[in-house]
Amino acid sequence: MKIALAQINTSVGDIEGNTKKIIEIIQKAKFLKIDIIAFPELAITGYPPLDLLYNDEFIESNLNALNEIIKNTEDITVIVGFVEGKNDNKLKVGYNAAALINNKNLIGVQHKTLLPTYDVFDEARYFYSSKENYVFEINKLKIGLQVCEDLWDNNYENKITKKLKEKGAELIFNINASPFYKEKILERQNLLKKQSNENNIPIFYVNQVGAQDELVFDGNSLIINEKGNFVAEGKKFEEDLLIFDLDNLNNDIKVSNYEDKDLLDALILGVRDYFKKSGFKKAVLGLSGGIDSSLTACISVEALGKENVIGVSMPSRYSSQHSRDDAKELADNLEIEYLVIPIGKTFDSMKETLKDEFFGLKEDITEENLQARIRGNILMALSNKFDYLVLSTGNKTELALGYCTLYGDMSGGLSVISDLSKNEVYNLAKLYNKIKGKEIIPKSSIEKIPSAELREDQFDPFDYSRISPLVDEIIENRRNKEELLEKGYQEKEINDILNKIKNAEYKRKQAAPGIKVTKKAFGIGRKMPIVNNFKY
Amino acid sequence: MKIALAQINTSVGDIEGNTKKIIEIIQKAKFLKIDIIAFPELAITGYPPLDLLYNDEFIESNLNALNEIIKNTEDITVIVGFVEGKNDNKLKVGYNAAALINNKNLIGVQHKTLLPTYDVFDEARYFYSSKENYVFEINKLKIGLQVCEDLWDNNYENKITKKLKEKGAELIFNINASPFYKEKILERQNLLKKQSNENNIPIFYVNQVGAQDELVFDGNSLIINEKGNFVAEGKKFEEDLLIFDLDNLNNDIKVSNYEDKDLLDALILGVRDYFKKSGFKKAVLGLSGGIDSSLTACISVEALGKENVIGVSMPSRYSSQHSRDDAKELADNLEIEYLVIPIGKTFDSMKETLKDEFFGLKEDITEENLQARIRGNILMALSNKFDYLVLSTGNKTELALGYCTLYGDMSGGLSVISDLSKNEVYNLAKLYNKIKGKEIIPKSSIEKIPSAELREDQFDPFDYSRISPLVDEIIENRRNKEELLEKGYQEKEINDILNKIKNAEYKRKQAAPGIKVTKKAFGIGRKMPIVNNFKY
Repeated sequence: MKIALAQINTSVGDIEGNTKKIIEIIQKAKFLKIDIIAFPELAITGYPPLDLLYNDEFIESNLNALNEIIKNTEDITVIVGFVEGKNDNKLKVGYNAAALINNKNLIGVQHKTLLPTYDVFDEARYFYSSKENYVFEINKLKIGLQVCEDLWDNNYENKITKKLKEKGAELIFNINASPFYKEKILERQNLLKKQSNENNIPIFYVNQVGAQDELVFDGNSLIINEKGNFVAEGKKFEEDLLIFDLDNLNNDIKVSNYEDKDLLDALILGVRDYFKKSGFKKAVLGLSGGIDSSLTACISVEALGKENVIGVSMPSRYSSQHSRDDAKELADNLEIEYLVIPIGKTFDSMKETLKDEFFGLKEDITEENLQARIRGNILMALSNKFDYLVLSTGNKTELALGYCTLYGDMSGGLSVISDLSKNEVYNLAKLYNKIKGKEIIPKSSIEKIPSAELREDQFDPFDYSRISPLVDEIIENRRNKEELLEKGYQEKEINDILNKIKNAEYKRKQAAPGIKVTKKAFGIGRKMPIVNNFKY
Repeated sequence: MKIALAQINTSVGDIEGNTKKIIEIIQKAKFLKIDIIAFPELAITGYPPLDLLYNDEFIESNLNALNEIIKNTEDITVIVGFVEGKNDNKLKVGYNAAALINNKNLIGVQHKTLLPTYDVFDEARYFYSSKENYVFEINKLKIGLQVCEDLWDNNYENKITKKLKEKGAELIFNINASPFYKEKILERQNLLKKQSNENNIPIFYVNQVGAQDELVFDGNSLIINEKGNFVAEGKKFEEDLLIFDLDNLNNDIKVSNYEDKDLLDALILGVRDYFKKSGFKKAVLGLSGGIDSSLTACISVEALGKENVIGVSMPSRYSSQHSRDDAKELADNLEIEYLVIPIGKTFDSMKETLKDEFFGLKEDITEENLQARIRGNILMALSNKFDYLVLSTGNKTELALGYCTLYGDMSGGLSVISDLSKNEVYNLAKLYNKIKGKEIIPKSSIEKIPSAELREDQFDPFDYSRISPLVDEIIENRRNKEELLEKGYQEKEINDILNKIKNAEYKRKQAAPGIKVTKKAFGIGRKMPIVNNFKY
């Protein structure tokens, strides 16, 4: 018996396009004499559909699509994710469901049982939980269906895999839309090993691939036998049709581990899909000569092609010659269009405009922000005039500390590296050069002391070697003060950073969406009050 | 027996301050010989605490606060909302709970059973649902406790009020943090009538008052007898201690209906509390002479006092004399500080800066946005220099259609009228003048054709009398196309507006938080994908 896992890249809302893709792959699978083919969670609607689910036409269109797919299943078994429900202004819409289709018949529907409602997930908002878990018979094979979280039952009382095995399932299909983060690849492998081994059952795990807003799905579908040995693996970060003959279930292959390059690939896919799926072609970004904008430019070039990235240097009187040189050198190395648009005159004009109001007052952060906002305005003007999308270049450490200007350098349609700590930015910059086999990112960009260059002799007021991991401990690892003290941080420094993080919440609420690559990113998965009077 | 409902204004995270307030009111209640006093849902932590719940110290501090409160309950019974749980990195934190305390003893704890997970609510993210509903005996009176949604059981199978009655409850306390929207006042009254009458039981409904980020809580606590007649009502939009003698349970009073003034009061409270709780004193906003900024200025003056509002006119060559006059007149009428900061020179300088890039191209929306963003930059500069908070002045209809400039007029720490449709803005402007007994907002601001004045002879390209309610039908009433056609809208116009709404999603994702006053506001309660390829 031949089984295929269709690791596809769908687009949220594009029910027509997703369905067309699904049917084409079914045709191909029939040609390849596949017996059973499984598609990802909510493959028809794209994941996550969010409040589109409240739209009558959306739900109906998804049900019509399912019927179209059913018509195309002569002599093949298909498992595909869809929404079973209706928008009747009740609290919830219905079920996140897997359809089991065989030879033009809908054999059964399994609703998702465990609904993730943490971090970026919001499924209890839309869906009811299944009360039943069924075992279906297809070609004399007893199979159980799971949707994503149903496999991740560690923190739930209801153990779905165990239940399915007890009901006689000989094999489990688990259909997913499981977003990437650094630790996920290993967590997923460990979970599959545990579940298959403990329950003595093979698991066919199919994940979607592609990016949607802040989320990147890495694919990397997996098949594991009842002994907990992997027998097949799908590609990472690209579409794949993973075909497997059940006769080979005794195989034992080595699957790929997480490597830092995955992080680069995730960001590249994040940028590429954001542009492709939102209809943009070209990106524009400010190039300061610093490490953040340099890495962002490299990722964008990989994602969009060098002909589609425009780098803009916007020097002021505070810009050092080495910064201008580094920016130019990077643009040359990447062979991208490079503009130089000085901001000095507009800055002077703005100060002149405000001179009565600011009479007698010293220059301060106001004038620094003015410059950052003039730069933001220039990038947005290029965006408006030429239909470019502005990429924001801030990193996670800065964003945590509020060391960034709202409506200034925070401007943009997409924030590429906002989930990379400053240390991670350095790592990836070096890795990028290494992969390319030459210094695309100039050595001086990597080695110089970071500076915003918004006034004379300014340098970033943080020791990033210390603060960058501290921020990660707080945000990603949710360490409390006691644990941070144990790790060797000083109380004063901890309180200072906690307060900085709290006080910058209002900025992050207005930040561009950023590509999530860690367990806990700023963005939709972190919901902090802006007005927050908790004293740390 | 004397019962009190303490309709208090807490602050999210300020466990110390909230606890101090609770204990002071308990002392007062003891002095007034109150037998039982009830405080709102999560009164100790403030509502909604959101991801602060993931903080160990936060949960612990809230439990310590409960113990402090318990110590202060000699000879009185206290019902108060708190979090029972701990942050142990499991999926959820614990329970949204009501403590029943009598004479320094914790008599019992009732966990919330129905967890709202729709619109702005996210409670399944943090809390488990109670499996039990208890009846407690206090002073020979059998009482049931409910937390907020437990009363709103229409869309749930589990009917808590009925269950409590069946278990012998003679009276129910329902503690709330129930946010305001226009229809809520009537919905709440109807629900209380239905539940008390059907289940033949009096209900003591205590709501918190005050604003938190986007949410406004109106207070308006209510007591209703077992016949469904109201017997007492708390104030709207201010703190209140509602004292009621059980002997008067046969009363029948007329409670206040919704009136348009409530909408103004909600916005005023929203602005006032945002400033007070985030430590800001003064507001700055652009005054264009148009209706939106005029109404925003009036609301701010009511919220903060005329000495704390600074209006800024930022004329360009496209600004009409009547607009400048109207802005000045409004500022004079409100007696607020008024600055005139022309943007012409900076606009010229910016165009000069971009002249090589834009060579040979016609002026278009780019130059319009440039102006809006220069204005945003000026307001932010004033904010940075003088610690003012910028108020954004856009309305809901504009925000829906994307007729607003990101980083331009959308700039601000708080968006005051972003949940008012254009028509509602007109209504409230007229109402404000009526309440004041004079034309604070100039007649011409109300009567002239709306214009952004960003180019020659520009007027808003919408017939707001038609489009403003159409947007409301789509967003607030979730009407589908068929229903809109039935209401007399044209297919072309419907599709156009649906697409405009979809295409402006990316702007709204970066908008300032806006004060919610309708069933469905843009903001935390509406979660749409940005990349969205659904074809309407």
